[in-house]
Amino acid sequence: MNYREKSLKLHGQWKGKIEVVSRVEVDSREKLSLAYTPGVAEPCLAIHKDVNQSFELTRRWNTVPVITDGTAVLGLGDIGPEAGMPVMEGKCALFKAFGGVDAMPLCLRTKDTEEIIRTIKLLAGSFGGINLEDISAPRCFEIERRLKEELDIPVFHDDQHGTAVVTAAALFNALKLVGKRAEDLKIAVNGAGAAGIAIAKFLLNLGCRDVIMCDSKGVICEGDSRLNAEKQGIAKITNRAHLTGGLAEAMKGADVFVGVSVANCVSKEMVRSMADRAIVFTCANPVPEISREDALEAGAAVVGTGSSEKPNQINNVLVFPGLFRGALDVRASDINFEMMRAASEAIASCVGDKLSPDYILPYAYEQHAHDAVAKAVAEAARKTGVARI
Amino acid sequence: MNYREKSLKLHGQWKGKIEVVSRVEVDSREKLSLAYTPGVAEPCLAIHKDVNQSFELTRRWNTVPVITDGTAVLGLGDIGPEAGMPVMEGKCALFKAFGGVDAMPLCLRTKDTEEIIRTIKLLAGSFGGINLEDISAPRCFEIERRLKEELDIPVFHDDQHGTAVVTAAALFNALKLVGKRAEDLKIAVNGAGAAGIAIAKFLLNLGCRDVIMCDSKGVICEGDSRLNAEKQGIAKITNRAHLTGGLAEAMKGADVFVGVSVANCVSKEMVRSMADRAIVFTCANPVPEISREDALEAGAAVVGTGSSEKPNQINNVLVFPGLFRGALDVRASDINFEMMRAASEAIASCVGDKLSPDYILPYAYEQHAHDAVAKAVAEAARKTGVARI
Repeated sequence: MNYREKSLKLHGQWKGKIEVVSRVEVDSREKLSLAYTPGVAEPCLAIHKDVNQSFELTRRWNTVPVITDGTAVLGLGDIGPEAGMPVMEGKCALFKAFGGVDAMPLCLRTKDTEEIIRTIKLLAGSFGGINLEDISAPRCFEIERRLKEELDIPVFHDDQHGTAVVTAAALFNALKLVGKRAEDLKIAVNGAGAAGIAIAKFLLNLGCRDVIMCDSKGVICEGDSRLNAEKQGIAKITNRAHLTGGLAEAMKGADVFVGVSVANCVSKEMVRSMADRAIVFTCANPVPEISREDALEAGAAVVGTGSSEKPNQINNVLVFPGLFRGALDVRASDINFEMMRAASEAIASCVGDKLSPDYILPYAYEQHAHDAVAKAVAEAARKTGVARI
Repeated sequence: MNYREKSLKLHGQWKGKIEVVSRVEVDSREKLSLAYTPGVAEPCLAIHKDVNQSFELTRRWNTVPVITDGTAVLGLGDIGPEAGMPVMEGKCALFKAFGGVDAMPLCLRTKDTEEIIRTIKLLAGSFGGINLEDISAPRCFEIERRLKEELDIPVFHDDQHGTAVVTAAALFNALKLVGKRAEDLKIAVNGAGAAGIAIAKFLLNLGCRDVIMCDSKGVICEGDSRLNAEKQGIAKITNRAHLTGGLAEAMKGADVFVGVSVANCVSKEMVRSMADRAIVFTCANPVPEISREDALEAGAAVVGTGSSEKPNQINNVLVFPGLFRGALDVRASDINFEMMRAASEAIASCVGDKLSPDYILPYAYEQHAHDAVAKAVAEAARKTGVARI
């Protein structure tokens, strides 16, 4: 029985991966009177007087919804809100296990951008932050941008930024192994959805200079009228040499390949065409762009994948629990670039002396990594003035 | 320190009365691969193929939101969504403690009827049922009616029906003590909000014939043009003698008074004007329509209150945990009248031989009562064809 068959069977036994429990006792008249009526009127009135008290007197301070519309679930695509729930629940379980965050899965029966924005805004008073999940591009960009503008709690689209943060951590550790500098790299990113675009932007913000992005049609080049608004934006800051062609052209001479795209789109030949001591991150799931074994055979110096069964899994589970833990701990109003950079550096530094081509990232279940992320993110929030306590 | 002061202090220590916990282990690569990627793809695909599988493979089967817009919280009125949260969380804690239900508090930042309906419909795929809470009348009637029509999971407005179910249980037990029959009663209900209207309708459906309702302006009489649509509806089935006047007129000769209204609106004189062996339910909170002591002095045979500090607390905590437990256990598509009647009878029958003027209802923390409600509701759901498993 493989992982997927075994997982299906287990999900049928679990009947849900999370549950809500009570933190108070209600087994006597007095206890009921304190946790519920009549006593509960007093905290209600205190919040009515000062809405900030909702972070002190209710679970809001620690509660985050994992919200999806089910349009971009794993590599499965638009499978619908209910079908996205096993992923959302899994994420909520990870939020609690590694970050101590109370996360609630919410699946929305709409794909309409404005309706998703409106719904989340209406719900925001219940939460300390918002985690957007598995919403397809390009809608996810507008939804996140608008919510960040219009809400005063942190909004984070994990598929974009969680992926970018962990990819950057992996890359900067790999650079130590191959002895290259960020500013000298030529980086080819394949896949211009939520993850690919966020990775490109984040790497450029971290000091990389030469990024070429490809989508399913080939290299993204400024001035191409077929591009959506988000791709037009990225075309202005990537591929400054105005290269055209396909992925093979983009990878030729590249120091780094980052694949967040589809199965089997990279050949050994394409890896061989890369620069010496090439770094290959082949993260398509469940089948990667090129297998780890083939990439190594073709000369890659460091290979990362999206698979839990291979070394160097580039998994955003390393990011979101600690990131939200840190943001919630200081009641941050936003999750900004400096907080994400701090998270990325914290993850990379957890590897320490054990750094090797087969260990460029901590494992997802290494708790010290999540704790380090939380601490670094809270500090960055304070430094950038978004911490409110 | 009174209950309210003590409650405020405790809420500050609890920092939330509920939390979300993981039901799965994720502390190894293999466990992560089963609860999350890549294994989780398989239950996702199974639900995509058959959406009913969301009740088997996720927590949906046991999960209910406690949703409010914060417009009618306790007796405090329109205090806003965030300020309603301590009540919602308390309710969620009670849902778990007495019904084993995973309940999530959601506070909506809108008072617009259509927007509330739309938002809840968008969220419905995440839940096995919907508990509406503390939404003011008359909007609550339309919201509940529409959601019951348009969703295929149970929708229950606790302020209406939870109150009606427990009030009826109290009344039918009190009738045994005073030796009267439902069909012979003259009943005066004061308060024509969510609770009052639902109580009147429920008692009429249970065989009571003569109910007179009052709102803050006095007796509600058919043909009065000042009435909203809901009150016009109730005016057609109550007060068939077309009595006019105030609450004093309504109570004169009444066998039963049910107060779900405001503090101190009933005098001893008014209780004295009632029929012999009168039943007085004085449920306004925190200060009742008339104190239990005054009502007894004025000749009432049985007195019920809304207070946890007096005998015969008429508290809908006796209803919602078991009611949803029963409905969820059979995956009911609705919570219908027969299910509510079954709940009411189950609560009343739990008192058994211990019935006395000071004990007409079980205490809220008597678990056997909740279990009895769940069993009776599930049976009623099967009998009425709304059970789906």
